[in-house]
Amino acid sequence: MSDSRPIALDAMGGDFAPAEIVQGGVDFARETGRRVLLVGRPERIEPVLAATETAGADVEVVPARDVIGFDDTIQAIRRKRNSSLHVGTRLVRDGEAAGFVSAGHTGALMALGKVVLGVIPGVQRPALPAPLPRRGEGYTILLDVGANVDCRPEHLVQFAVMGTDYAARIFGVERPRVALLSIGEEETKRNDLVQETAELLRGTSLNFVGNCEGNSLFSDVADVVVCDGFVGNVALKVAEGLAEAIYGMLKDEVAAGSLLNLLGGLAMRPAFKNLKRKIDYAETGGVPLLGLRGVVVVAHGRSTARAVRGAMHVAAHAAERDLVGRIGREIGGLGPLAGPTEAGGG
Amino acid sequence: MSDSRPIALDAMGGDFAPAEIVQGGVDFARETGRRVLLVGRPERIEPVLAATETAGADVEVVPARDVIGFDDTIQAIRRKRNSSLHVGTRLVRDGEAAGFVSAGHTGALMALGKVVLGVIPGVQRPALPAPLPRRGEGYTILLDVGANVDCRPEHLVQFAVMGTDYAARIFGVERPRVALLSIGEEETKRNDLVQETAELLRGTSLNFVGNCEGNSLFSDVADVVVCDGFVGNVALKVAEGLAEAIYGMLKDEVAAGSLLNLLGGLAMRPAFKNLKRKIDYAETGGVPLLGLRGVVVVAHGRSTARAVRGAMHVAAHAAERDLVGRIGREIGGLGPLAGPTEAGGG
Repeated sequence: MSDSRPIALDAMGGDFAPAEIVQGGVDFARETGRRVLLVGRPERIEPVLAATETAGADVEVVPARDVIGFDDTIQAIRRKRNSSLHVGTRLVRDGEAAGFVSAGHTGALMALGKVVLGVIPGVQRPALPAPLPRRGEGYTILLDVGANVDCRPEHLVQFAVMGTDYAARIFGVERPRVALLSIGEEETKRNDLVQETAELLRGTSLNFVGNCEGNSLFSDVADVVVCDGFVGNVALKVAEGLAEAIYGMLKDEVAAGSLLNLLGGLAMRPAFKNLKRKIDYAETGGVPLLGLRGVVVVAHGRSTARAVRGAMHVAAHAAERDLVGRIGREIGGLGPLAGPTEAGGG
Repeated sequence: MSDSRPIALDAMGGDFAPAEIVQGGVDFARETGRRVLLVGRPERIEPVLAATETAGADVEVVPARDVIGFDDTIQAIRRKRNSSLHVGTRLVRDGEAAGFVSAGHTGALMALGKVVLGVIPGVQRPALPAPLPRRGEGYTILLDVGANVDCRPEHLVQFAVMGTDYAARIFGVERPRVALLSIGEEETKRNDLVQETAELLRGTSLNFVGNCEGNSLFSDVADVVVCDGFVGNVALKVAEGLAEAIYGMLKDEVAAGSLLNLLGGLAMRPAFKNLKRKIDYAETGGVPLLGLRGVVVVAHGRSTARAVRGAMHVAAHAAERDLVGRIGREIGGLGPLAGPTEAGGG
């Protein structure tokens, strides 16, 4: 299945917007020959385009005049119907774009996606995944990492289905192994949610390999790990915070150390860079909001041009490989576990 | 207040028992002049003592004949009334030891502690803390990290009190800052537990500084962070797993790299070692089980002699600085939030 429609890009979202965002969009357009729709305020985008080498890049500016402020609530964002987030998701809904990429506010994007695009029939709660690096090859996909705080067992089963489709379609994993995030202490009564979910998962055709603990996220134990959005968000933030702290501590050690340390630090720089690239969330490009009726990819707020280009590729892959259709079929196949989508959400 | 009674040490618990454990006990005894009671099977302990330099170390073997197996359930462990865990906690209960240190099964130790020593009046749930390293000085104490999976708001408030006393008495922090682990997404309805707990904490005399996210655990934002034991255990295991993965990845990078990389890796070795010491859970020595009516300190299962010695110091400090009495007074001061201790536990 081929889908050569344009990819829409939120030129206004992210810490380095619009310059890095536009650059990433142009790079993707040139690399793939695909049209890119730059969504945002023309008077901000055009000067960047004028200063950029755009030869061979098929880009078009799609105006979106409303500006979303840092303090805007989700309600306020919903009302600004001409923001780049609104216009971008509408382009997907109306079939004018194969997907929409934004480094803007994840929560707002999820909320708008539900309203504008709607949710895949049978999906009860769309979810936000995060690919975590492992030693060796590949990633462990953790979900949900914050879209759904209070989950029931059937929600976690649906996360497992959507995570499996994501791992298979975007990362090319064959028959992804699914695990349930839990804790090992046998003497405590297990969280009821975990126990009930494990029973449900055993009844599906998913490749459920059992429970895993937090340390297994970074080793080759499972491809998809599901949990409540509160737990997942804490896990993701702990990983981000610790990675940053370790870099800082090593820097401090090098600075406080001998000349040998200093030389060692310099010599190690390429190794660090490689490692940082591997761990950096932005490096995997961006993550699709799973369960929406259309391709929406969220990139990290600190995305550079390189990360934006990566996120555009994720959106293109998701569209070409029909991730949305696949999720719809698999969720439908769950039978009674596919429920009516819940109202409100987000 | 001085407490010069002996410290009891479980010679049988931990991956490197009895050799490293006994060595750590002997080192502590020699360093402090304090008597150490080595609890376990004499025929296992005595050969180690015979091969160790014990001059100047006041050590005594206290027989405990039952052996706890890897597969023993908590119930089975409870029944083995002559295991080292049982005998050690009884020494504390009977006032023959100021504290008990074990690198054995944390869950079993907590369960036995509740039965043998009992719980401080007013404490509803004893808790397990974990000191996490920060860039710069000090540690952030996270609790509960696994003793209590399903918590109510008043439990978290009690964790905050006990964590504050631990930070003040053992780490010497003045007026420790307390934060509540949460997630930042405003668009999701917050976990009810977090919201209710925040309200209760504002009504106490604790130095409550608000909510924090998972990444703040490794920066100088709070001294004590409280959460449900499920979330805390996941956070701790994620940190352990990621730290291990980062070491592994750096090793791989060095191995795959140039000669310069290799030399850099060698030169960096002291910096890595310092960092590893800082991050290593065992390095902080061991953690007291908070809320028990007596000093019980759990050391990491992989404890070496050095870690055991550190854990002995923690037990000695906890006894000398009357951590148990302090917790009792502060929990009593909570008024209605000090509740009847719950039956069963574990």
